[in-house]
This record gives sequence, C-alpha cells and structure tokens, in this order.
Amino acid sequence: MKLSIVLSLQPTRFASLTYQGKTEDYFQKIKTLGYDGVELAIRDPSLLDWNHLEESIKTSGLKVPAIGTGQAYIEEGLRFSSPSHEIRKRAIERIKLQILLAKRFQAGVIIGLIRGKVQGNEDLRRGFHWMIESLNACCEAAEKEGVFLWVEPLNRYEINLINTVEEGLGLLNQVGSENLGLLPDTFHMNIEEPIIEDSFRKARPYYNHVHIADSNRWPPGFGHIDFKSILQVLRETLFEGFLSVECLPKPDADEASERAIKFLRGIV
Amino acid sequence: MKLSIVLSLQPTRFASLTYQGKTEDYFQKIKTLGYDGVELAIRDPSLLDWNHLEESIKTSGLKVPAIGTGQAYIEEGLRFSSPSHEIRKRAIERIKLQILLAKRFQAGVIIGLIRGKVQGNEDLRRGFHWMIESLNACCEAAEKEGVFLWVEPLNRYEINLINTVEEGLGLLNQVGSENLGLLPDTFHMNIEEPIIEDSFRKARPYYNHVHIADSNRWPPGFGHIDFKSILQVLRETLFEGFLSVECLPKPDADEASERAIKFLRGIV
Repeated sequence: MKLSIVLSLQPTRFASLTYQGKTEDYFQKIKTLGYDGVELAIRDPSLLDWNHLEESIKTSGLKVPAIGTGQAYIEEGLRFSSPSHEIRKRAIERIKLQILLAKRFQAGVIIGLIRGKVQGNEDLRRGFHWMIESLNACCEAAEKEGVFLWVEPLNRYEINLINTVEEGLGLLNQVGSENLGLLPDTFHMNIEEPIIEDSFRKARPYYNHVHIADSNRWPPGFGHIDFKSILQVLRETLFEGFLSVECLPKPDADEASERAIKFLRGIV
Repeated sequence: MKLSIVLSLQPTRFASLTYQGKTEDYFQKIKTLGYDGVELAIRDPSLLDWNHLEESIKTSGLKVPAIGTGQAYIEEGLRFSSPSHEIRKRAIERIKLQILLAKRFQAGVIIGLIRGKVQGNEDLRRGFHWMIESLNACCEAAEKEGVFLWVEPLNRYEINLINTVEEGLGLLNQVGSENLGLLPDTFHMNIEEPIIEDSFRKARPYYNHVHIADSNRWPPGFGHIDFKSILQVLRETLFEGFLSVECLPKPDADEASERAIKFLRGIV
C-alpha cells in the first residue's frame, strides 16, 4: 500500500502534524525515509508560490495525494457552518482555491475542520444546512475541475457536524455529487465508530485515502488500534489509495515519521 | 463484582449521566434493575436535604460508592487550577462539603473536572501548582474525616491536568496523602492509554472504583472496548470495588441502564 505523511506548509496551532515549517527540504527527507507521498496541510494557497511548490515536489519524486484545509478554520475562523454569509463565502473561496492547487497534483481536497463547530448559541440544524450549502458550491467547482473532495469525520470534541462514517455516508447521499467522498481517520474512528473494521467495510467504495494515527494520536504502534486487522479489511476491499500518517510529533517529529513508516511497512 | 450507575441529583449540562433529575424514585428503579449501588453526581451538597437523601438510599437498599463533583466546574466554573484565589477557595470549600456528605455513605469523592481546564492565556505549570495546593487542602480534610478522594484522569479534550494513569500516579506521589487514590474510566482510557489493560495493572492498588463506558461513551457493549479482557485483569489483581456505569443516555436513559447491567452481568 502507498504511504504518505502530513506536512504543514504554514505555521499552525494544530499540533497533529508530524512536521511543521515552510521548508521544502522536508520533501527529500520524507522521500528518503521511504514514503511515497506527502500530504500538504495548507492554510491559504494564495500565500504560496505554486510553481516553486510543484517543482520541489517533482524534484523529490513524491506524490501529493491530498491537501488538508483545516488551518483556515483554526487560524482564521473560516467555516462552512457559520451564520455569517461573509465567513461562509470566504471559506468557500478558500476551498475553491485549494481545488485549483489540488488539480496540479491530482490530489484530493480534505473537508475536515473547515466545516466548523456550530457554537453553543447557534442552531445546529441551521449550521448543518449552511454546511451543505457551502459544500454544494465547492462540489460544483470540484466537478468542473475534476478534483475530489473528501469529507473527514472528526470526533465529537473537535466538531459537531459529521462525527461518524455513517453520518458521512448520509451526507454524501444528501449532497449527491460524484466528486464527494469520505476520508476515514483511525484516531477519530477509535472514539466514534462502534467497530472500526465494520465502518471501513461499510464506507467502501466511498473513500480512497485514509488518515493513520494510533488511539492516542501518536504514530501507529504507540497505542492500541489493531492496524493489522484494519489493513486486512483494506486489502479485502481492494483499497488502492494512500495510508497517510497524521499524528502528533511524538516522541518528536523525526522519530514519529521514522517509527510510523517502519511500523506500517512491517504490516502492509 | 459490584455494579453501580451514575445518577445526577441536580440538573446539569453534562450529558454523560444515564439519568438526570432530582427524583429519588430512580433509586428503586436502579435497585430493581439489579445494580448494587448508585453513584451520585452532585453540584452543590448544600442544596440537598442530607437526611432525606440518606433515608431514601437506606430504603432503596443501594450503596453509594462514590460522589461525582464535576458539575461545580461545568455549571459554576469552580476549579482547583484557577488563577483566582476566590474561585480556588470556593472549589475547595465545595469539595470539603462533599467530603462531609460522602462520610455518611462511606463513599469516595471524585476529583475529576473540578481540577479544571487551564485556559489558553494562563500558565499550565502555574495551574498545576494551584491544583496541587487545592488538592492538599482537600486531602487534609479527607484524612480528618476518613474519606477517600479519587483523581480521575480525563481525556485531553476535557482537561489538561492529568490525562493518563501514569500522570495520575505521579500526582499521588507528589501529594503523598494516604487518602488520595485514582479512578480509571474506560472511555477516557481508550483515548489516552497505550494499552488499557497494562494501565489497569500499573495503577493497582491505587484505585478501588472504575468508571465504565464504551469507546463511544455509549453503554458497554455498544463500542469496541474489550471489557472481558479488562475484567480479567481486575480479577487477577483482586479488585473488590464497584464498576460504575457512567455513559451517555443512549439509545435512551432506560435502555442504557438496562443494557449496561445485562452486558456486565454477562461477563463479571
């Protein structure tokens, strides 16, 4: 199976990224460790030199299977579910830009935290409605560009719109775009899914990219998730996408990326 | 093994309680379902009629193994780690009152959310120091009354002081009171402990009460925690306390309490 690891191209307060920093030198390091790809976490694509980025990636020999977008929520508060028309509009524009960048790499665009947490004083159903409306606008752009959007279910503490794979499948049904899929993440699944393996089976073929972190969000092998059993399910269901490591930089960033690929290569 | 279930005696925004409401009629219901005890979640003991409560408990034939105290944080913001001397003082006074009530039932007093989350603009080490200071004051009162205080490690999203059993053991060491113990909770352990069974072993004999909820905080049997394996460890390490169900009221409060005891009686 193909392996990638998340790299943040802009500083962020989100600690669940193995590397942080703007240096493309990391690309070579990741390649040397044996990864096939690098997943990019990008707050604002307009701040990047796209041609330079493309060149660096090409030089490294890595693929870019996916682009993560949640930093725009964490750092700027942009979200699909906001009661503010202006904030929703900016969130949609941001994702549309991510779609254009993703097109260059034939990468998927991750719809995770950008959905946003509906606040205590807001109406949850109204927030859900706005999320759908924003998603529809992005799907239209994605279809036009031939890019895929992947909705990542996140655990209840991080978001209150789409926590489980089942809710994710319901959302796909409701939106009805062929360019919309899911992105299961083992850390979140350990909290939200009754039986992780069952959820992986149920969600096929609606995902082609999987986030890997152990139960404590450390690299795989540091917690109690049964990755052997999960990989067995992925093989049985003919999964051909990337397993993408998105974990805390624990014990530190270097060791996390080394331990993760060593562990995964041992079982894939 | 003895089984109990959490009952909130005052309205709360904390949903992880199988029943909510002030009616002592629930005691009989819980007894009829086959539970040996009822764990009371109490925001402010001064608002209760202690004699009436004691009488109702006696009539029901239930034990009260523990008193939960986190509502004072959720509803009133009282916490051990606050930079405000006044808030810390009120939190300590509240726990001292809980100790006096607990003495009537020979119950343990739970030190969970009352530790409080250190806020982003506060210093974490300073918050830790204040938590210890507050805990010391409460331990003194607990020793005098012959009551036990149990520090419950909670997952990273709920608190940033004592998330793991290991951190809990370090705290016991630092405080050094014979009346201070731990309270492992399977829901939180699923997120924070590398191997749940190992942590149960490591923490013996520093706990005599265990919170039970499945990985998704539903009743045991609805998620993927291996309770058989955990109970095997508890038996091997001669655990004689209560398994206390603290889960979401899912599918609803009645079914949760029925399904939980049915599941647990099937494996204890």
